[in-house]
Amino acid sequence: MAPNVDSELPLVLLSHRGPVSFGRDGDRRTATKGSGGLVTALLGLAEHLSDAVWVCAASSDEDIAIAREAEGRSVQVQTSPQLLLVDEGTTPDDEGRALEVRMIETDPWAHEAFYTVVSNPILWFIQHGLYGLTFAPVLTANEHAAFTDGYVAVNSAFADAVAEEVEARGGRALVMLQDYHFYLVAGDVRKRCPEALLSHFIHIPWPGPDSWRVLPPYMRDKLLLGLLGSDVVAFHTERYARNFVHCCSELLGLRVDLDALTVEVDGRTVYARHYPISVDPAALEAVAATDEVAAHVATLTDTYLASREESGEPEDPPRRLVVRVDRTDPSKNVVRGFLAFGQLLDQHPELAGSVSFLALLQPSRTDVPEYSDYIATIGAVVAEINAKHTRHGQQPIDLRMVEDFPLAVAAYSICDVLMVNALADGMNLVAKEVPVVNERSGVLALSENTGAHEELGAFAVTLYPFDIQQMADGLYEALTMPQADRARLLAAAAAQVRENDVSAWLSAQLRDLDRLRG
Amino acid sequence: MAPNVDSELPLVLLSHRGPVSFGRDGDRRTATKGSGGLVTALLGLAEHLSDAVWVCAASSDEDIAIAREAEGRSVQVQTSPQLLLVDEGTTPDDEGRALEVRMIETDPWAHEAFYTVVSNPILWFIQHGLYGLTFAPVLTANEHAAFTDGYVAVNSAFADAVAEEVEARGGRALVMLQDYHFYLVAGDVRKRCPEALLSHFIHIPWPGPDSWRVLPPYMRDKLLLGLLGSDVVAFHTERYARNFVHCCSELLGLRVDLDALTVEVDGRTVYARHYPISVDPAALEAVAATDEVAAHVATLTDTYLASREESGEPEDPPRRLVVRVDRTDPSKNVVRGFLAFGQLLDQHPELAGSVSFLALLQPSRTDVPEYSDYIATIGAVVAEINAKHTRHGQQPIDLRMVEDFPLAVAAYSICDVLMVNALADGMNLVAKEVPVVNERSGVLALSENTGAHEELGAFAVTLYPFDIQQMADGLYEALTMPQADRARLLAAAAAQVRENDVSAWLSAQLRDLDRLRG
Repeated sequence: MAPNVDSELPLVLLSHRGPVSFGRDGDRRTATKGSGGLVTALLGLAEHLSDAVWVCAASSDEDIAIAREAEGRSVQVQTSPQLLLVDEGTTPDDEGRALEVRMIETDPWAHEAFYTVVSNPILWFIQHGLYGLTFAPVLTANEHAAFTDGYVAVNSAFADAVAEEVEARGGRALVMLQDYHFYLVAGDVRKRCPEALLSHFIHIPWPGPDSWRVLPPYMRDKLLLGLLGSDVVAFHTERYARNFVHCCSELLGLRVDLDALTVEVDGRTVYARHYPISVDPAALEAVAATDEVAAHVATLTDTYLASREESGEPEDPPRRLVVRVDRTDPSKNVVRGFLAFGQLLDQHPELAGSVSFLALLQPSRTDVPEYSDYIATIGAVVAEINAKHTRHGQQPIDLRMVEDFPLAVAAYSICDVLMVNALADGMNLVAKEVPVVNERSGVLALSENTGAHEELGAFAVTLYPFDIQQMADGLYEALTMPQADRARLLAAAAAQVRENDVSAWLSAQLRDLDRLRG
Repeated sequence: MAPNVDSELPLVLLSHRGPVSFGRDGDRRTATKGSGGLVTALLGLAEHLSDAVWVCAASSDEDIAIAREAEGRSVQVQTSPQLLLVDEGTTPDDEGRALEVRMIETDPWAHEAFYTVVSNPILWFIQHGLYGLTFAPVLTANEHAAFTDGYVAVNSAFADAVAEEVEARGGRALVMLQDYHFYLVAGDVRKRCPEALLSHFIHIPWPGPDSWRVLPPYMRDKLLLGLLGSDVVAFHTERYARNFVHCCSELLGLRVDLDALTVEVDGRTVYARHYPISVDPAALEAVAATDEVAAHVATLTDTYLASREESGEPEDPPRRLVVRVDRTDPSKNVVRGFLAFGQLLDQHPELAGSVSFLALLQPSRTDVPEYSDYIATIGAVVAEINAKHTRHGQQPIDLRMVEDFPLAVAAYSICDVLMVNALADGMNLVAKEVPVVNERSGVLALSENTGAHEELGAFAVTLYPFDIQQMADGLYEALTMPQADRARLLAAAAAQVRENDVSAWLSAQLRDLDRLRG
């Protein structure tokens, strides 16, 4: 999965979660690879280069111990054939690949403010449009302190580390910053390292200027100007890139070009670009081919799809399975998804007993009241629908609060419909995973407010996520679509994903950055 | 107050509330002038023209009786020297002015759906950003029916009436449509009357495309395309006009020019314009000069501003008065306003006992749960602050749930600070009324999210309405500003309002429409 890149510049990566996290098993240090497609993609890139360092937060106690031992330097991590910390004085396995990782320990209070006051509630809520503005947010002295002494301070610490790594490489490096935790880093790094080539990728939606007015100018202007320290600010979709350029015009009064998607600042041109992130089809197929997945497929098929001759109701329509796989984040819109499914069963009672909805939901941020309330509401809605529509002793909705990737892949492969009805979702990779492994001509029922919709909307039934009736109609359309149409849409979606896989995502960015450099 | 207009075209006006509403006092028909600056301004225009008709909803039982008697025709209303219905067969007083009014009776169910399901909750909430998208809105079959059989049907009925009035004038007329109740009228009228010159004025904020995605395309596209039936779509601020043009580009894929603020549709050019509505300074000064206002001024001064020598605390700072006058609409942000005032008293305890906050709040839409909950929260917050900060037996906040314009004008004239901290507000005329009548060098503390801020922000302390701490600091700045600065800002704000009064608002529109015609 090595991306196609000619860059000879050293690479400095920054993300909050790193490629590896360490633990302890008695005397032995253990190492776990970071999860998610982003880590996989960037690891593929970093391993491929002769000089790359990955800056990240020291998350676990063992990470912190290692960061302290390293005294502000990076450590070497062997990534294959086996993940392990390379001790000082030894060299990594000749056959293996290795990577420099610099883990940053920050003041616990500052990190808490940065992470659980600013990044996750405030920035996440603004960028996903989750605030009910009548009552939230209420920004007080507490949020002001969390911004200044938390977000700004932590960003400054990471910017120092990034700048040091750039300076250690003679001041010229490709710097790739990731996501909403670090909007201020590019501005700081540019001041110290004007020769660096800076790119910042934002993995969540970017809303228009109205949404950012929730913050006072001293916060919102600082965030925008920090990002504009980059040469390229990158998003998953053109819509987000356009919103970003609007913000620079409307909130900062900068000169912009909405066709070229550029912003003029301090005599420089900043490019807003979009590169839709994707999945690694080969890796996904490898998971799908495991015995574990096969066992799940057998059980799920038996439970939801096997013919039910003993029911004595031969007129039953064929059994079908709707699947969703999400975190329990309010932005995923699980409650309205179930309301729409309930409406479908109300309006098409012949489907009750033959259509099942398997929801694999990973509990998320359960210490935040909005999130725990949301889980409670999910449970309440599911109980009502199941009480009303259970047939043949089988509940229509099977709600499982688990994170189990092999089970999810099994569900992907046998679902008739995948429901993704997010209010707002930077990309949504589930919508790209299903087409790669589905074997039942599964139909995507996909919210227009996901990044994935820009690529896959033409091969999906579009859902409008606030409209229960429209989503019920959309599910019905997906469930009753002729087989030939289903197969055609799935094949087209799969081809699109395979063509624009995660390696293509990275290569496109690097090509553009190479061009900028020239 | 006759606006400066050369137009020789007949005029057809449309607004939901009309210039007059009828009632009954025994055998006698009574007539009441519609309230608000809009009615006053448009009445001034209509009276001035030789051929003008005002189409509006028949609201009261007596309105409906008159509409039925008129059998689909307009009735003649004498507007001065005395407001009355001119009976058929008689002519209005020679000295008086008269106006044609056509009141429309619609099916009660359709009107209820149009008004209390679509216009006021859905459109109002979207345009003021009031939805907490995690749980609201939930669009069901009920909202679909209310849109199609309510909003669309009622708009169609009003469009028919407007088109008939245009056709009765040979198909050529100036048509001025008002506000969010009638987004579909221009499209329908244009089809029947291609020679008409159509203008639609929107008096509430217009948000960017993200906000409109709350509605499915069949609703949002229809609303936008309806508006684009106009030649001019007009707003209070350039920000709203720009958002509208963005929406046409992003949601409809139309060709737009963001500098010229134009939209190309069906081979025509539609102009998005902004004309900030204003007040009638002379009328306001006349109210301020009444005995009723003088009596209120005396009482309020005695209560809040008279020196309190008997208190035995001669070091007290001079007494000062903060005032707000608002409907209890969540968009007015009353709760955060009081929280900020409470924070001010917490951080500057020397102000408790000398600064009072008089809030005149007009209860609004109390049958809507969000609105009655909001009133309850206002009461809770006020009680807490008063319990904490009462001094010399006087509560810091005097919360009065009243609509009393003379009392409001008295408060305007003696306040030291006017607080307007709306989350979103199309214009906010209170911010324009205070500078005209204030006699204590009152300072405007004005939200950046009001339309008024585009004109008056330079002469005000700007409030960022989600930030309690910033608003507390803003109130402190306004209360402690040197007298010379206060006087200078107030004079500049007053000059701006007098220069751009409501007559100028109307003249600017008519000038542009005349130019378009040429």
